[in-house]
Amino acid sequence: MSTAKRSIIEVATDRRSSFVDISTDLEMKFNEMNATDGLCHLYCPHTTAGLTINEGVDRAVARDILKTLDRLVPHYGDYAHMEGNSDAHVKSTLVGVSLMIGVEAGKLLLGQWQRVFFCEFDGPRARQVWVRFIGNTQR
Amino acid sequence: MSTAKRSIIEVATDRRSSFVDISTDLEMKFNEMNATDGLCHLYCPHTTAGLTINEGVDRAVARDILKTLDRLVPHYGDYAHMEGNSDAHVKSTLVGVSLMIGVEAGKLLLGQWQRVFFCEFDGPRARQVWVRFIGNTQR
Amino acid sequence: MSTAKRSIIEVATDRRSSFVDISTDLEMKFNEMNATDGLCHLYCPHTTAGLTINEGVDRAVARDILKTLDRLVPHYGDYAHMEGNSDAHVKSTLVGVSLMIGVEAGKLLLGQWQRVFFCEFDGPRARQVWVRFIGNTQR
Repeated sequence: MSTAKRSIIEVATDRRSSFVDISTDLEMKFNEMNATDGLCHLYCPHTTAGLTINEGVDRAVARDILKTLDRLVPHYGDYAHMEGNSDAHVKSTLVGVSLMIGVEAGKLLLGQWQRVFFCEFDGPRARQVWVRFIGNTQR
Repeated sequence: MSTAKRSIIEVATDRRSSFVDISTDLEMKFNEMNATDGLCHLYCPHTTAGLTINEGVDRAVARDILKTLDRLVPHYGDYAHMEGNSDAHVKSTLVGVSLMIGVEAGKLLLGQWQRVFFCEFDGPRARQVWVRFIGNTQR
Repeated sequence: MSTAKRSIIEVATDRRSSFVDISTDLEMKFNEMNATDGLCHLYCPHTTAGLTINEGVDRAVARDILKTLDRLVPHYGDYAHMEGNSDAHVKSTLVGVSLMIGVEAGKLLLGQWQRVFFCEFDGPRARQVWVRFIGNTQR
């Protein structure tokens, strides 16, 4: 058993708010790392973005989540931070930046309808997701 | 040190929204796995449910959390997803589906008032929680 | 590779709601543990507090997050729990109590603007953060 070195997924977002499905990118990384069974740690190193797991079949789900977050935490409001992206910082704390997911036979252990999403709240930007695997590797 | 295989807790929910205390079920699993000291990974494989840690003595706390989530993210609203459970997807992302908790001497390392809850947002349904232990095991 | 024993950071909060930057305390703990490369698990054992990662340079960001949480989940409202701190329990579930963060060369693997915050929602109180390291240690 070992902890693999950090690997990086590059995510280019194309609008202010969006969900980007990174599930396939993750499994490509597991393949590169020869990761078979264990847990992976996903980490978003940005303060105006996050990571979540939710339904990936009907893209309307992601739109409903983003729209609800916008209703609860509007882009423009009575904020003290002067960069015009306070809402994105709040959303990042609500959604979270750190996830652990099981891995079996080099595949993400997700539920039937689940996919892993990078959540952009202040794009478009060049973003990263850091990936670390803990468990068994095979050559 | 090793990563135990995934174990499954079955949770049968009996209404649309509820918190189910799974702390005792978890410790029974640690006993089955001979898990002594380390960390456990809890994972909810559903997109309309979640996992949280909060007060378990006064059940009014769980009711207040569910009621507040309902006020912020109402069941019926202007949603694009047509299955009538968009609110449950949003709540799943707000609460989260992945937790790590310490384990010592086969017991959950919780604070004095904390219990671990499965959060149902679109029940009643047959649900699962996936459990994986990382650390020391003893025969 | 090993799982270090739990270490404890003491946090004294000085008002009802605040963010306390614990990043430096964490790295002092890694130094005490001889922790070099791996992952750390941070855990808040309280039901009216939480842990988050967000911007640490402009303190206005923390104020905006706390203010937005207060707007969404007011201190006084129609709550069933009679201790006058239901809002703090709800905020704890929204923000979360468990985090995993990478560690390299004994330092937290954070993004450029990120810091780790203990989130007090029902202070002032004497609080703790539990820290556990998984990975390589060096004498």
